[in-house]
Amino acid sequence: MQIIFNPKKESWSELLKRPTQSFEDIEETVKGIFKEIQQKGDVAVQKYTSLFDGTCIENILVSQEEINEAISLVSNELKEAIEVAKNNIYNFHTAQKTEKLEVITTNGVSCWQEKRPIQKVGLYIPGGSAPLFSTVLMLALPAQIAGCKEIVLCTPPNKEGKINPAILYTAQLCGVTKIFKVGGIQAIGALTFGTETIPKVYKIFGPGNQFVTVAKQYATQFGVGIDMPAGPSELLVYADESANAAFVASDLLSQAEHGKDSQVILVTTSKDILKKVENEITKQIEELPRKEIAKVAIENSRLFCVTNEKVALELINEYAPEHFIVCSKNEDFFVSGIENAGSIFIGNNTPESAGDYASGTNHTLPTNGYAKTYSGVNLDSFMKAMTFQKITEEGMLNIGKSIEIMAESEGLQAHKNAVSLRLKELIK
Amino acid sequence: MQIIFNPKKESWSELLKRPTQSFEDIEETVKGIFKEIQQKGDVAVQKYTSLFDGTCIENILVSQEEINEAISLVSNELKEAIEVAKNNIYNFHTAQKTEKLEVITTNGVSCWQEKRPIQKVGLYIPGGSAPLFSTVLMLALPAQIAGCKEIVLCTPPNKEGKINPAILYTAQLCGVTKIFKVGGIQAIGALTFGTETIPKVYKIFGPGNQFVTVAKQYATQFGVGIDMPAGPSELLVYADESANAAFVASDLLSQAEHGKDSQVILVTTSKDILKKVENEITKQIEELPRKEIAKVAIENSRLFCVTNEKVALELINEYAPEHFIVCSKNEDFFVSGIENAGSIFIGNNTPESAGDYASGTNHTLPTNGYAKTYSGVNLDSFMKAMTFQKITEEGMLNIGKSIEIMAESEGLQAHKNAVSLRLKELIK
Repeated sequence: MQIIFNPKKESWSELLKRPTQSFEDIEETVKGIFKEIQQKGDVAVQKYTSLFDGTCIENILVSQEEINEAISLVSNELKEAIEVAKNNIYNFHTAQKTEKLEVITTNGVSCWQEKRPIQKVGLYIPGGSAPLFSTVLMLALPAQIAGCKEIVLCTPPNKEGKINPAILYTAQLCGVTKIFKVGGIQAIGALTFGTETIPKVYKIFGPGNQFVTVAKQYATQFGVGIDMPAGPSELLVYADESANAAFVASDLLSQAEHGKDSQVILVTTSKDILKKVENEITKQIEELPRKEIAKVAIENSRLFCVTNEKVALELINEYAPEHFIVCSKNEDFFVSGIENAGSIFIGNNTPESAGDYASGTNHTLPTNGYAKTYSGVNLDSFMKAMTFQKITEEGMLNIGKSIEIMAESEGLQAHKNAVSLRLKELIK
Repeated sequence: MQIIFNPKKESWSELLKRPTQSFEDIEETVKGIFKEIQQKGDVAVQKYTSLFDGTCIENILVSQEEINEAISLVSNELKEAIEVAKNNIYNFHTAQKTEKLEVITTNGVSCWQEKRPIQKVGLYIPGGSAPLFSTVLMLALPAQIAGCKEIVLCTPPNKEGKINPAILYTAQLCGVTKIFKVGGIQAIGALTFGTETIPKVYKIFGPGNQFVTVAKQYATQFGVGIDMPAGPSELLVYADESANAAFVASDLLSQAEHGKDSQVILVTTSKDILKKVENEITKQIEELPRKEIAKVAIENSRLFCVTNEKVALELINEYAPEHFIVCSKNEDFFVSGIENAGSIFIGNNTPESAGDYASGTNHTLPTNGYAKTYSGVNLDSFMKAMTFQKITEEGMLNIGKSIEIMAESEGLQAHKNAVSLRLKELIK
């Protein structure tokens, strides 16, 4: 843990730096595999599944039998927990629906905005040690609420060619239309171009390792949208004397167990709290099954003690954390003043875990400082806003002249002419 | 003009193909210039302004005197026209403001979403033959309404080191905080990294030539957001017997004058209308000052005659036009059925020019099929949605157990522990 007292403002950007990742070597691999998938489709997908996942799968489309089997394998206890999370996530994202928004901007000129679903979306769910069925909830539910017609899920099979039952169970529960046993670069490539079996989609969502991340970024060059660029997960906690140090430490550790490159930051105005949190981390970390991972992340963590809350807030806005927990008697100051953060957790009883699983907010959030620019995934991520306008004769008479003058000034005579022809017809 | 009767569905994707652009050679130029700007700041910016714009500018920041001069140079007629457009755009985008959205997802679990402005944005306005002050309205007004703190505008100077007065006039009118006489790749690079003079921004908006487009895409690798990938402008008109063929032709020509690569498409169920539009185009095109450009675009245009409205709509959704004009006695069928389009213009008195300048909708729209995934620029483009949650003791007791079970099932023990610690405290 790096402990920093009252850092000078000039040093902030250095102190808050995330590790930079270079993807140049991965890029070539991605380009090669994409090209092969574009040309050979399923055959190429199969080849790379054998190569990377060590399994040869005849039918990559998950069958109804496999889904039924998965349903029977998930415990009732987990099913009930998923139901609680599902209801909260469903309610919070359904509330984000917007109505048609109409404005008569000038008499006879009616403009409106409507959001319509992206017709085909792809969801990527990583494999590996943690079967992230919670991410299925976070992506499939808003896709379903938005009204996306095709909701395609790709996730890598294990060595036996199987997928974790909790992922299959959650996918069928949340309206996923097709599930494929395909992971990594080959999954993103297949969703980008489409193959004989896997449909091409318009936007790809979901987390993944560095190969998936680079593949998603590369996919944008072929006209596919992505949710956001992904980096290692992050948590920043602001805590003052009103905070429970053991809780704060447990939150920082929950972030640290994600990966060795997880970013863990404490900001406080109290030396006393800083010390207590530090001690609690040292104590609690030993109990964790993933302590080898957590220790590396904690090693790189930074604990800041600053002079006052104003400076603290400024520092936090400069960092723009993915997750921001605030445990302060002046929580309103932070809640109203936070400009850059993905999701904000307020008070001693609001751990990040709550948002990760079940409070109702989405856990797919901007990392790496992107919270300055990007929203986390929400209902709008699965829709696009379209505008409409309808102008009556009266409306054309009201704004036609202005359009003519502006078009003429920009040197666009045909733009002017489209209006002049109509005005001539109306005035004659 | 390529006239196509009842094309088979298998041939659609080929017939609707946009010209593919290869940017590989430009990429190297962009990388080199970005690197130089990152290292040398203003000096590099100046060097490339000399090289590409043929002018050497000492002070790239536009002064108050220059703005005052511009104000005096713009005619009252144009000022009044801009005022009409500004009011409509302002009203339509202000109506897009959203309130804090709060949901009690479970007793004691409060979740809400709030949108907050992106603090620093960069607007790029191209130079060249057409001084696009209308684009200043379309980008600066929503930035101002959103509450962005820094609104930086970059636009290339002419050979005399000057900027078109209408651009300066509109920029000062719409709350732009700083205007720089810098264009092209060097403008995008400067906004990405910041220089001694030009501030680094979090998101870059605006159209541009292929160099600017590639530079914007490359900027995203350095953590900067962009509005959308840009391609040549597009218009698709659906017209039946109720359409005025002269109007339709004038609209298609207004698109065609943008550039030789502009995409112009007519879809109809009426051979008669197709013929009439074709004749009108041939007649009207001769009158245009930019006819040399328009002729090339019209040469590549496609006029489709299909069997019925259902097929027409399907074809239109497959193409996903940036601009879609519908002149049909069954306009409701198209308005309710359109899934993929940037902005929709309804009826004989609603030319695309209206949306380009003054109806109130935004003219920065997704091209190249991106309307399947992307929204046009709107108020939300200048904000990000942040989520908040606050859980009471009761709330933790209500959802804590579910979080524990899910975290455990995902193998994330520290996530579970953050909840277990709190539950223990509450139950004791």
